[in-house]
This record gives sequence, structure tokens and C-alpha cells, in this order.
Amino acid sequence: MRRIGVAVVGAGFWGRNHARNLRELNETRLLAVCDKDEAKAKAVADLFGVDAYTDSNKMMKRQDIEAVTVCTWSTTLATEAMRALRLGKHVLVEKPMANNIHEAQKVIELAKAKHRYLMVGFLMRFIPGVQRIKQAVEKGEIGSVVYATARRVSQWPERIGDVGVVKDLAIHDIDITRYLLQEEPVEVYAKAGSFRHKKFEDHAQILITFRGRKTAYIEANWLTPYKIRKLTVTGSEAIVSLDYTTQEITMETAGQTLAPRYEVKEPLKLELQHFANCIMDDKEPITTGVDGLKALQIAESALKSARTGKAIKLKPL
Amino acid sequence: MRRIGVAVVGAGFWGRNHARNLRELNETRLLAVCDKDEAKAKAVADLFGVDAYTDSNKMMKRQDIEAVTVCTWSTTLATEAMRALRLGKHVLVEKPMANNIHEAQKVIELAKAKHRYLMVGFLMRFIPGVQRIKQAVEKGEIGSVVYATARRVSQWPERIGDVGVVKDLAIHDIDITRYLLQEEPVEVYAKAGSFRHKKFEDHAQILITFRGRKTAYIEANWLTPYKIRKLTVTGSEAIVSLDYTTQEITMETAGQTLAPRYEVKEPLKLELQHFANCIMDDKEPITTGVDGLKALQIAESALKSARTGKAIKLKPL
Amino acid sequence: MRRIGVAVVGAGFWGRNHARNLRELNETRLLAVCDKDEAKAKAVADLFGVDAYTDSNKMMKRQDIEAVTVCTWSTTLATEAMRALRLGKHVLVEKPMANNIHEAQKVIELAKAKHRYLMVGFLMRFIPGVQRIKQAVEKGEIGSVVYATARRVSQWPERIGDVGVVKDLAIHDIDITRYLLQEEPVEVYAKAGSFRHKKFEDHAQILITFRGRKTAYIEANWLTPYKIRKLTVTGSEAIVSLDYTTQEITMETAGQTLAPRYEVKEPLKLELQHFANCIMDDKEPITTGVDGLKALQIAESALKSARTGKAIKLKPL
Amino acid sequence: MRRIGVAVVGAGFWGRNHARNLRELNETRLLAVCDKDEAKAKAVADLFGVDAYTDSNKMMKRQDIEAVTVCTWSTTLATEAMRALRLGKHVLVEKPMANNIHEAQKVIELAKAKHRYLMVGFLMRFIPGVQRIKQAVEKGEIGSVVYATARRVSQWPERIGDVGVVKDLAIHDIDITRYLLQEEPVEVYAKAGSFRHKKFEDHAQILITFRGRKTAYIEANWLTPYKIRKLTVTGSEAIVSLDYTTQEITMETAGQTLAPRYEVKEPLKLELQHFANCIMDDKEPITTGVDGLKALQIAESALKSARTGKAIKLKPL
Repeated sequence: MRRIGVAVVGAGFWGRNHARNLRELNETRLLAVCDKDEAKAKAVADLFGVDAYTDSNKMMKRQDIEAVTVCTWSTTLATEAMRALRLGKHVLVEKPMANNIHEAQKVIELAKAKHRYLMVGFLMRFIPGVQRIKQAVEKGEIGSVVYATARRVSQWPERIGDVGVVKDLAIHDIDITRYLLQEEPVEVYAKAGSFRHKKFEDHAQILITFRGRKTAYIEANWLTPYKIRKLTVTGSEAIVSLDYTTQEITMETAGQTLAPRYEVKEPLKLELQHFANCIMDDKEPITTGVDGLKALQIAESALKSARTGKAIKLKPL
Repeated sequence: MRRIGVAVVGAGFWGRNHARNLRELNETRLLAVCDKDEAKAKAVADLFGVDAYTDSNKMMKRQDIEAVTVCTWSTTLATEAMRALRLGKHVLVEKPMANNIHEAQKVIELAKAKHRYLMVGFLMRFIPGVQRIKQAVEKGEIGSVVYATARRVSQWPERIGDVGVVKDLAIHDIDITRYLLQEEPVEVYAKAGSFRHKKFEDHAQILITFRGRKTAYIEANWLTPYKIRKLTVTGSEAIVSLDYTTQEITMETAGQTLAPRYEVKEPLKLELQHFANCIMDDKEPITTGVDGLKALQIAESALKSARTGKAIKLKPL
Repeated sequence: MRRIGVAVVGAGFWGRNHARNLRELNETRLLAVCDKDEAKAKAVADLFGVDAYTDSNKMMKRQDIEAVTVCTWSTTLATEAMRALRLGKHVLVEKPMANNIHEAQKVIELAKAKHRYLMVGFLMRFIPGVQRIKQAVEKGEIGSVVYATARRVSQWPERIGDVGVVKDLAIHDIDITRYLLQEEPVEVYAKAGSFRHKKFEDHAQILITFRGRKTAYIEANWLTPYKIRKLTVTGSEAIVSLDYTTQEITMETAGQTLAPRYEVKEPLKLELQHFANCIMDDKEPITTGVDGLKALQIAESALKSARTGKAIKLKPL
Repeated sequence: MRRIGVAVVGAGFWGRNHARNLRELNETRLLAVCDKDEAKAKAVADLFGVDAYTDSNKMMKRQDIEAVTVCTWSTTLATEAMRALRLGKHVLVEKPMANNIHEAQKVIELAKAKHRYLMVGFLMRFIPGVQRIKQAVEKGEIGSVVYATARRVSQWPERIGDVGVVKDLAIHDIDITRYLLQEEPVEVYAKAGSFRHKKFEDHAQILITFRGRKTAYIEANWLTPYKIRKLTVTGSEAIVSLDYTTQEITMETAGQTLAPRYEVKEPLKLELQHFANCIMDDKEPITTGVDGLKALQIAESALKSARTGKAIKLKPL
């Protein structure tokens, strides 16, 4: 089997995880790791026996690199993604993909112009339980979907990021509820604020309304004493719940509670494998640039709603 | 010990429960039961060996009746409560207390003018676990409260009521979150609608914002396949959850999950006992007419928000 | 529908429960209650508006009494059962049925000679979850049964009985494992002793071996800090567990955990209804005198094993 | 800090795990791996960049090797342990340590004669939850211990071993219950047999009695549809349960259920670290050769009891 030559931009926590999985997968060949911080770049590159770079432009010029995964800080994701696209690479960019909608749109256009695949790293979609819920929704196993609720809360994160809790945490559930409810959101109302964090919001409660009256409610914060990552989809025939941490799902109907047993899998491995397979088989990834753009629009509207105290209508993009 | 002579207006499901408890309590003496439907009135009265009436006015003229509990349909609660107050009785009126804010205010004023106690039947407050959570909040055991979420969903109710899911179900959680968060709500945003019910909304998602930025999110519906009644209060130090059905609570902190074991108690018995004790000891009940009024205001604002698609500011009452 | 006229012998905790259910059932007519303690007899009789007796012989001579339920202390169960049989009544006798095997055999013979039904009050069989497990075993849903384990432990009982924990608690699980494993026990090994109780054993661990090599392990005590009543049946294809207290069952297979939702039912009501139906339809009860006898044999063998430190072979009865 | 030079004998599943941990620990320096199967030895040695041997004798002659961990098949554990001891190495030998009591005694004597540490790989003791339970028992948090029950069951194991379920699985719980109950066992009664396996028993139920009347009941099999590894210790004041798989513990008292939150740790890492620390600090390991010997005696007595149908008294060793 052919292997896709891949390089990783950003050698922090997630960059290291990308590198490890790209090395272990049969579908990919890890070729290089880049980070502005030379020590970091070298540390990760050495661990996996590949080349280290501090200049991503230089690295990306290598012809054996077909694809790049971008794991830098939120504020430079779009810049690095565009650099890679310009050099003809396929790109997997971490969420939230860009600093704003405008920038996200430019990345999407560039990918289109260059005929390269652009995938956004919505990791949650690759958890087997999410796929099981998706299937349950599509097959009508849960009846008519009424709403979804998601809870993604934790203690203060060790690393202080360059975005708040909406673009860092809630964006996962924004994407997942769009994905599972299979409708476009039309309105967002949110409350967000900062109890402890100086620069960014540290808690947010977001109520999204979809075209067909379904709703999604998302809680995200960095205030609660321990980590909870849960999703519930309520339908007329069943209530399906997922614990993202244990990957366990339960399906509750009028007659029973059922918990299928799954092999726990590392979603990042499945995500990177999917990315490689899309390139090899020439097919669109399941999390596209447009998914990233729409999630970003909802995240920004949530922040705007929290600032203005008003419900925000979502313009079609 | 002196016993308070009590009569029950309304001999439906709840009226019968009131009558049974009033008969069993040491603090009360059940004297009479009234219902427009003579058969219903007689059935309940016979069961407990008391007098049956079809005319509440006639019943309430009895001098031995000191207090009345009103368990009629929602639309006649205020009328019956006012009738009892006019005749000098203390009144426990079921939620939602009145058809609208204006009517609720009139009931409150009448109670004040007549120097009689007016209690609203917010049953949930009398569940031991709610009192335990209240205590945890007050003692700071859960740190700073961030928000509360409540879920009160069930299958289609057998009896079609004369109000929708907001005034029938959500009103409980409106009251409980006000009670536990210890702040006044300032804004309500809600989505509600009807997937199956003809006359009234059958599902609602309500986001309430309190003065100090805390929020409460309430889900209520008659669409889900089985009954769930849950409450979660999230604080900076602990997350406290209550299952209203089993009366079990859990307190999750960074270090542990703790589930105190309680004796399951019938909240209605505790509520009626409290009502009797307030009369005997001449003290204000913990669920006053004003609590009923405020809950009604929030419920109506939620319905208005759902109709208009706007967040509704709450005027001080 | 014809109703069976029934009287209750013994007006303690269980006698009162029998009386209440016999009064509520459509299949039975409660006629009288008897207890040597006149106050007790009167209290229960008055509650349900029937006649009180202190002399069971006198009561049982009434012609309108067709059947008798015996809820006295363990040591007088057999005496009262035989008295009732001699007077031609059908008998439901509480476990442990008799003081010893010999006495139990005499009760069985008398019932046979008098052509009357003799049922032993193994209440657990009437819990819907036990019936569900029985069905699962019979249909092969759990594959080949390997063994069962049961745990019936609690704090010190308020009423000090006249038997130890083996005949009071473990006997339920002795009967249930016999019932579910569908084989006759051939050997019993047990440890039992008294950490706190003066007269009787307060804890016992019993390992029963059945003909086809299946085993059952039963833990019973009055030492543990709170009440647990659990049963697990392990098969080659599934593990089925029942919580007797909540009546919830779970079925765990390689692929899933499934918890059917049941309406909680009072097993005593179902037991008394079954007794009445057996008399009316002239059919053998599902818990016969022989079941009582065999459970007693195992209980006594367990106590003997604990005394002698040896495994006891069970002689066919 | 000085590092202990260690070699691993046996490059199967467990040998590979030993090697990985010995390489990662700061306390140890992995020097060599040995296996009769050259390919296996090389595979593991290459993975961690150390030397591969097929002759353990040759490997153990290296002066830089201070300690050896023995992870071979059960039947050769004692031989390899003695070879290492003779050459002056400290030894960590996997359970069940030896083929029989006699052999185990010889290993212990040799370690004593050579003044070398001999540790037996009872991995379970190193699970943080087991240490927490040990502490609870010692501090009297659970009151007087009444008994322990353990359940270690799973589907058919992929690798067919050279011992049955008693020496492969149950031996863990034999050691743990001895460790936690803090008394010496005096009697063993067991049932064991083979429903599917040809050569060895595939299920066993073992009831162990300790000097002070406490008991332990152990279920082990390779027949049940999925993996369960649980321990419950019942005391007069609390019931403590551990799920070995998730490492979660719960402590149930009359008043509450408490589940402390722990960081999940790899017990093998802690075990190997302990082994290295004992050598460095010149102190006895917490799982000695005598622990291995006693567990083996109980395991063999259980098998003998199952063969003979009798309870076996344990002779002091």
C-alpha cells in the first residue's frame, strides 16, 4: 500500500499526538515536524526519528510531503494552512481553523483553487459512539429528534490558550450537534462570561435553534471541579447519551436501557487515517472546511449574543 | 396537640393524595372534600370517612374548617383560593396558582388583607434532597454557583391538562432554580412548540439569566419515551445532582463522588405538614404567594420569548 | 367473580401486609385476623373492618373461611398450618414453614391427605425480575448456566426473631437458586457464626453444589451497614443480575448491557393472588410444600456444615 | 540517582510489558531480554534498543545485570528464578512462582542463602485502589471485616496457558484476600471443573476460611461472556468495592456511598519501581516469596478440594 508523506506543523501537546499516530499508521509516513521553538521541534522529531524544522515554509517545500497537519495556536492556524495549500499540500487543520469567518472563507477558497483537500480537526466525530448515534438518528431508531444537549466542562486548563471556552471547547459540540441534528442552525442565544479568566470567557451556555425547530443546548466551562464531556440526543422514541471520556453510550427507550459495548479507540488515529484515506481514494473528508466555517460562525454569534443580550439570527454562508 | 381542620377542593388525582395525607398526619384533621363532579367527591370522601360537597362555597362556610387546599384544574385555582380567603381560610393552592400574573397578584393581596397564610404547592422544595442541595449552596459546599440545569420530561400524559408543558412541568424547575440560586431572574429566553399536542406547547427549552450572571437551563416535554426528573447545580467546587424520582443526590468534587443515603419520604406529606405547622406556629410558609407569582411571571415570559423569538427582560414585581 | 374467603393467622408486620393485600385483591375476601396478642389482632382487624380472634382454632372453624395464611413466628408456623389443614382449609404458610424437616414432611402429608393446597411463602419468586430471569434461563438466553450468587445482607434487624440468618434470610436464596438453576442440590458447605447475636448465627456463607456441577453461593448476614438484596446468574452467554430492592435487572452479554424497564409490583400481592387463583382454578401453586421442605433441608445442612466444618451430602427426600 | 541494571527473561506479552516499563522508569536500566524463541527475543530487544539472548544463563552472567524479572511460562518460572539467584541476581518472578509448593520452598531457601531479594509478581497489590482498601481496613474505617468476595471472570483466553484458571486467575484474589484480611487461611473448600477446556479447569469457586472466622469467596472462570474483575470487602461499618479494570473504588456506609477519584496508574510500573526501590534501599518487598508460596498452597488445596469433594485444612508452612 502506498503511504502518504505527512509533516506536522506545531510540536505542542497535539502536534506530538499527531506525530505519534502518523508514525504508527500504515497509511501514512511521518516525514518532518516543525515548530518555531527549536527545542520542541527537535524533541518530537527525535522521538520519532524524523527531521525537525523551525521554518514551516522551508519544510513544506519538500516534494515528498504530500500533506500537512496544522496543530499550532489558534491564531496562526489559518496562516499555516494557507501556506501549505499554496505549496500544493493537502491540509488537516485543527479547530477552530481560523481567527474569524472571513479568514476561514479564504482558506476554503484557496483549497478549492488549488484542488487540495481541506479537513478540519473535529475529533469528536471520530469517536465510535458518535458514529453509532449518527446511525441511530439516520435510521430513525430514536424517532424524531427533539433536541440535543452537550456538556463539556473541566477544571482550569493548565495551558492558557489564545481563545476562550467557546472556540476552544464549545466548538466541538457546535459541530457535533450540527452533524447529528442534520439541519442548519438559524438562531443562537448565549450567555458567557468570565469568573476567573482575565482575557477570555471561561464559561458559556449556548442555545442554538435549528431550521426545523430542533434545539441544541451547550454548556462549556473551565470552572467546574472535574472533567465532564457528555452528549445527549433526545428523540420521540429514545434518548441516546454518550460519555466522550469513557466512549460509552446508552440508549434509553420506553422499555429498556441498552448500553452497547465498544472497543475504546483513539479518535485521533481514526481521524488521521480518514484524512490519509481521503487523499488516497480522492474523496471528500467528512469534516470539511465548510463545517469549520459554520462552526466558527455559530461560535462567533454565541459570543456576540452574550455581549449584546440578544438572540442572533444566522445568515446563510 | 391541636389539629388543623382542613378541607380539599378538587377530588382528582392530586386531591385524593392531599386527602390521604391530611388524614394520616397528626397535625391535621381532614373534614371534607369537594368536587363539582359528585361521584368523584363522594368516592374520595367515602374512602376517608369525611363529608362530600359539590359546592365549595357551601363547604367553606363550615366553621371547623380552618384551612383549604386547592387542587382543581389550573384555570380555577385562583377563583377557589380567593373564595377560601374571603371566608377567612388559610390556603394552600396548587401551582401554577393562577391563570396569569394579574390574577396571582389579586390572590396575594387578598391573603394579605385577610391576614391569612397563602402557600403555593411547589412540591419539589419538600424533597429531602432539594433541602440538602439548598444547604450545600448556602454553606458554600459547592463553591460559587455557576448554573443549574433541570430536565423534566416524560411520555404523553394520560390526562390532557388545561395548560401546556411550561406551566405544568417547567414551573417546578423555575421555582426550584430561583430557590437554589438565591438570586432574582432578570432575563428569559425560550424555545417552545408543539410536535403532537393540539392546544398547548408540548416541549420547551428555557434559559433564565439571574442578576449575578448565573443561569438556569430547563428542559421540559411530553415527548420523550420515559419519565426523567433531574436537577444539576454546578458550582466552582462541586456539581450536585438530584434524581427527583428516586430522591437520590450525588455530590461530585475534584476528589470524589459522594451519594448520601436518605430515607425516601413523600414530599406531599412534608408539604402539608409544613402548611399545618405554619398555621399553628404563626409563621410564613417557605413557598409563598410571591414565589408563585414570580414563577408564573417567568413561565409567561418564556412562552412570550418562544412566540417572539426574543429574550424577555423581567420587570421587578 | 367468586372471591376466596381468607383469614390471617399472626398480626405482626407480615400479617398486617397479608391482610391489606387480601382486602385489596379482587380474588379474595378478607374475613378475619387472629393473634394471641389481642391488641395486635384488634388493631389489624379494625384497620380493615374484619373480625379479630385470639384463638386460631375458633376462627378457623368458620365455614366461610376457605383458606388461611400463616404469618406467625417461625416456631409455630407448622402447628398453625396443620391446624388449618385439619379443618379443611387451603394454606399459605410463611417460610421457613416448619421447625425441621420432619415437621415439614408431616405438614405436606396432611395437606395431601386432606386434598388441600399447601403453598409456601417464597415471596421472591413473585418479583417480576425473577420471572424474567427464569424465562431467560429456560429459553437459553444466557447460554449454559455456570453458577448463581446471592447476597442478602443488612443491618441488625429491629425485631429479634426466633431463627438465625440462614432460616430467616438465606432460605429465600436457597429457594430461588434451586428454582432458577433447575437442578437438585447434592452438597452443601457453609460457614456461619455469630459476631454479635447471642442465640443464633448472624452471618453465613453457603456454597451449594447441584447435580450437574452448577453451584450457588449465598451470603447472608445481619452485620453489614445497609441493606443489599442482589442475585446474579452467570451463564456462558450472559450474566443476569437482579436488585431485589429496586426490582431492576440487567443482562450483560459480550456485546451489550441491557436493562429492561419494569413496572415495580408488590410481590406479596402477586403471591396472594396466585394462591387464590390456584384454589379457584384447582391447580398446584408454583411454591409447594416440597419446595419448602427442600429449602429447609439445605438450610439445616448449611448449619450442620458450619458446625462440623465438613461438606454435607444431601439425601434425596 | 543510581539505576538498577535489569534483564527480562521471557519475551511474551508480559515480558514485553516488563521491558517497556523498565526502560521508562528512572530507577532501572533495561539491559537485555531473553527468550528461547530468538525472533521474540530480538523483537522486544530491538524495540527498546537492548541486547537479545536465547540462553538465559549466558545473559545472567553479565555483571552489569543486578536484577532479573522472570516472565516465562508458569512451568519454568522457578527454574529461571533459581538460575538467576544462583548467579547472585535479585529476582522478581511472575505468579504462580513455581510448579508446586516444594519447588517454591526451594526458591525461597535459595534467595535466603544467597542474600538476594525475591519478589513475586502479585500485580494487583499495586493498584492504587487496593492500597486504599488496605488502608481502610487497617485504620478500621470499615469496622470489623466480615468477608471478602472476588470475581475474576472472562471469555476464553486467546493464549492457552500451561495452568488452569485457579493458578492463572484465582491466585491473584487468593493473594489479595490474604493481604487485605490480614489473617492466615486455615481451610479451603472449592468446586472446579471444565466445561470447555480439555487439559485444565476452566471455572472455580473457592471458599477460604481464615483463622478468625473471616471468609473469602473467589469466583474465577474463562466461560463468561465478558471480562469482570471485582473485589468487595464487607465490614461491620462499610462495604468497599473495587473494579480492577477501571480502578474505581466505592465505599458504602449506612449513611452514604463514596467514590474517591484516583489517577489511573499502570500497576506494573508501580510494581517494578517498588522492586527497584527495595534493592536500592535494602528493604523487603511487599510481595515476598512466602506470599507466593502461601498463595500456591491455597491454590493447590482448592484444586484438591474440588477433586476430593472435601474441605482441606491448611498446614502451617
